Amino acid sequence: MTETTLLEQPVDAAAATLGELETPSLVLDRDRMERNIARLRGRLAKFDVSLRPHLKTAKSIDVAQRLYPEAPGPITVSTLAEAEYFASHGFSDITYAVGLAPDKAERALRLRGRGVDLKVVLDTVDQARALAAAGAALGVSPAALIEIDSDGHRGGLAPGDPAIGDVAAALRDGGVELMGVLTHAGESYGLRTPDALAEAAEGERAAAVAAAAQLRRDGHECPVVSVGSTPTAHFARNLDGVTEMRAGVYMFFDLVMHGIGVCRLDDIAVSVLATVIGRKPEKGWILIDAGWMALSRDRGTASQAVDQRYGVVCDLEGRPYPDLLVAEASQEHGILALRAGSDQPLPDLPVGARVRILPNHACATAAQHEAYNVVRGASPVVETRWPRMRGW
Amino acid sequence: MTETTLLEQPVDAAAATLGELETPSLVLDRDRMERNIARLRGRLAKFDVSLRPHLKTAKSIDVAQRLYPEAPGPITVSTLAEAEYFASHGFSDITYAVGLAPDKAERALRLRGRGVDLKVVLDTVDQARALAAAGAALGVSPAALIEIDSDGHRGGLAPGDPAIGDVAAALRDGGVELMGVLTHAGESYGLRTPDALAEAAEGERAAAVAAAAQLRRDGHECPVVSVGSTPTAHFARNLDGVTEMRAGVYMFFDLVMHGIGVCRLDDIAVSVLATVIGRKPEKGWILIDAGWMALSRDRGTASQAVDQRYGVVCDLEGRPYPDLLVAEASQEHGILALRAGSDQPLPDLPVGARVRILPNHACATAAQHEAYNVVRGASPVVETRWPRMRGW
Repeated sequence: MTETTLLEQPVDAAAATLGELETPSLVLDRDRMERNIARLRGRLAKFDVSLRPHLKTAKSIDVAQRLYPEAPGPITVSTLAEAEYFASHGFSDITYAVGLAPDKAERALRLRGRGVDLKVVLDTVDQARALAAAGAALGVSPAALIEIDSDGHRGGLAPGDPAIGDVAAALRDGGVELMGVLTHAGESYGLRTPDALAEAAEGERAAAVAAAAQLRRDGHECPVVSVGSTPTAHFARNLDGVTEMRAGVYMFFDLVMHGIGVCRLDDIAVSVLATVIGRKPEKGWILIDAGWMALSRDRGTASQAVDQRYGVVCDLEGRPYPDLLVAEASQEHGILALRAGSDQPLPDLPVGARVRILPNHACATAAQHEAYNVVRGASPVVETRWPRMRGW
Repeated sequence: MTETTLLEQPVDAAAATLGELETPSLVLDRDRMERNIARLRGRLAKFDVSLRPHLKTAKSIDVAQRLYPEAPGPITVSTLAEAEYFASHGFSDITYAVGLAPDKAERALRLRGRGVDLKVVLDTVDQARALAAAGAALGVSPAALIEIDSDGHRGGLAPGDPAIGDVAAALRDGGVELMGVLTHAGESYGLRTPDALAEAAEGERAAAVAAAAQLRRDGHECPVVSVGSTPTAHFARNLDGVTEMRAGVYMFFDLVMHGIGVCRLDDIAVSVLATVIGRKPEKGWILIDAGWMALSRDRGTASQAVDQRYGVVCDLEGRPYPDLLVAEASQEHGILALRAGSDQPLPDLPVGARVRILPNHACATAAQHEAYNVVRGASPVVETRWPRMRGW
């Protein structure tokens, strides 16, 4: 993977610490990330499943290469642009896990024509026929997974729905390889006890296994039974019948995952570096130069037991200031204030001081930035910059 | 401005209509935009003020050139990256309207060193001294506006606060040209009647004028008295003493501005093109391939009288489907559903059908995209692509 070296852009000597970077900037603590990656690998080692990391959070070949230091392995993506990007860097086993728009079938199959084992996801006969037609037009043999609905969260067919057989038949009739079934327990993001999360994981497993059994009864092979979300991946107790687990945000974690109980605050590997630009002591406010453009508008913790507003404020070494949050955000301004009811003092952060903000939702916050500024633990040294991709 | 022609990227012949673009994509209706631009110009013509459009929404030289078809004029920006971008395209009268981080002073002054009349904004003696020191180090004479707080929304000094005099003195002592005062009635976004908006505009005006008088009493010239927000710009009844108005989102408008009462739905010039990828008729859901990555997480209408969820769904010609909203959004999925309590039928939108989504907040939604696909009115023809800039 010679690309690694080429893509690692050393930061210029004049901006080699967190005290010197332009603000706002996205910071990635590589030590925390590697610990998070090792944790899930370790947990899944006791199950007979493979891990297919979802790269919609990281969108970075450098992060992907830390997931697979030896050689590229299976990955999940959320856009065809991600599939093309990771394929161009040597990844050849890719599941595009968003229901296929018929107009995207040709573009997806052009990747297969280049030797990339790209699998698409669908749940209607119309999509199956569009995929088959595109395959015939391009002379490429498509591969698909049928999306299964395990918790009413979004798309997919419920196990037992005869439409599963209809879609499978349309795939077979159209010369599409039916690889298996895929489901995602999206409702697990609303839970917060180990038992409830284990139950969500069991629901996810049971739905996928039941749908696979249904297909096998109809004579389909269905080799892949794919499940996953970061919460269920960390709390599943039984994965019998499952062949692969997908998870994405686990590499970085965030305040939503902390609120669910999947990680500690000091596991969160991404943060936004910001500078103090004003103070309103009479209101208990400190103003910073990071607003929603840098943090995103995501307020995922608003519906959790502890609302972290627009993020938890830390010092440059990544230690949270007690009760200090980004209380409000406009486009390029954030307002720091103590959590309601706090008896802590407002930290003495003068104009020009720098802080790091832990985000609600790593996927949304990282998407606001061009690159990760990579640090290790409490060291202020920015070792390298890892670019991110975006778009569709 | 030869850059215009260079930057207009004709879309390729294979993707020249809204039926053919990749989805999700950002669409800009140039007819609506030009009508919105003309409307505010017309309204302000009766006042003795100049307009300094805020380009934090558009972030596009092509849009800037529709504001100034003859020659570049005064603009406002929210980041130094915007200032550098617009300066590189010939704009030389720029106000950077976010409180200056001391570390950014040198970068800002390098633009002044290149002949760009860049004015910065500040409200503390520390910032004034940092700016003066950077000016001395670079041999460049800085120019600044003092930020005034007119409604307790964010930063700035209240009129009458003796700190205004302290900051002005620090600027004068440091050789910085004090251009005047600047305020922004951010609280106007929470209002919704013409009288309340006119009152907010009067508060904005009165605060800025009072602060300017305070400075003049101390012997400062204070030629610039700058106010503005899109709501107050459209509802101000008296601008005596004001020299310039700033507004940004008025070029595009959005559902938040519609909820405030500043525009009609069919004034909203930006939308997100999406494709139907699934249906759940038993739940009243239609799934599309645009989630929060394409729409942003902004839910600005959640606190308004009418909550538009993640956006209003329109047909390809830009006509809203009655009561159809993007009810939920995950990263790359949107769920269309009827507004709660609606007696409308769910439109018959099959897999593969295309829709356009009007966003809560144009600034946030546009920021998720690389470029505007430019159409005119109900025509499906994409005339050109206008790139957007981003970052800090």
